[in-house]
Amino acid sequence: MPAKDKFHDAVKNALIKDGWTITDDPLRLRWGKRRGYIDIGAEKLFSAEKEGRKIAVEIKSFSSLSEMADLEDGVGQYTIYQTLLKRLQPDRTLYLAIPQEKYFDLFDENEIGSLLLEDYNLKIIVYESENEVIAKWIH
Amino acid sequence: MPAKDKFHDAVKNALIKDGWTITDDPLRLRWGKRRGYIDIGAEKLFSAEKEGRKIAVEIKSFSSLSEMADLEDGVGQYTIYQTLLKRLQPDRTLYLAIPQEKYFDLFDENEIGSLLLEDYNLKIIVYESENEVIAKWIH
Repeated sequence: MPAKDKFHDAVKNALIKDGWTITDDPLRLRWGKRRGYIDIGAEKLFSAEKEGRKIAVEIKSFSSLSEMADLEDGVGQYTIYQTLLKRLQPDRTLYLAIPQEKYFDLFDENEIGSLLLEDYNLKIIVYESENEVIAKWIH
Repeated sequence: MPAKDKFHDAVKNALIKDGWTITDDPLRLRWGKRRGYIDIGAEKLFSAEKEGRKIAVEIKSFSSLSEMADLEDGVGQYTIYQTLLKRLQPDRTLYLAIPQEKYFDLFDENEIGSLLLEDYNLKIIVYESENEVIAKWIH
């Protein structure tokens, strides 16, 4: 099981301050028949609710040496979680949580992240990791 | 720069046997303005042509301990390469090359890979790594 992302608590606390209730941490998505179920999501994913709105949040700290490798990793996980959520919990919307400074680096105008937002149905929570607050929702 | 995937030569040789000409190895996709260009793709991507048909091939050996982590990684890279190719070389079609045994594990009926094929425009070359031949194209 992967180690908890170091910004896990910052994102959770930011959502709690914003009025959300954390419902499952981790949120486990189980799938696969032929070789037995596998748990997907593990400790990188949690769920929250607010006023009937249900979300799943993938935490990505982007703390490795390569921002591009982190982005590839985060987008790959998002794609797979999305595919499973659609079938297991279709009323829950998936967000990728990204620290604000990495959002500026990767998703600024003309940067690769902005192209991904144009091309794919990618939803993002931008958070300030020091202050533990949500900076921006991108739907 | 990432190390060459160990099945890189097997996929290239399989395509050559199938009548393709390798045109760029690696195929570099350069993007980004604000902080200077970055090379994406590096040694995981090459290009080939046959009878006017142009492809880019992402090689994924799925050789780590976790098939799911490899799949996430491969899908994330595919998504980003796809987004860049669409803008840089729109006449080139991207394929993810997967060894046959991993294809059976991950893309069998009801397995996660089969859901990804339903949901996304994912194109795959399935190859036999021992014999260095293409087993199947999935368009």
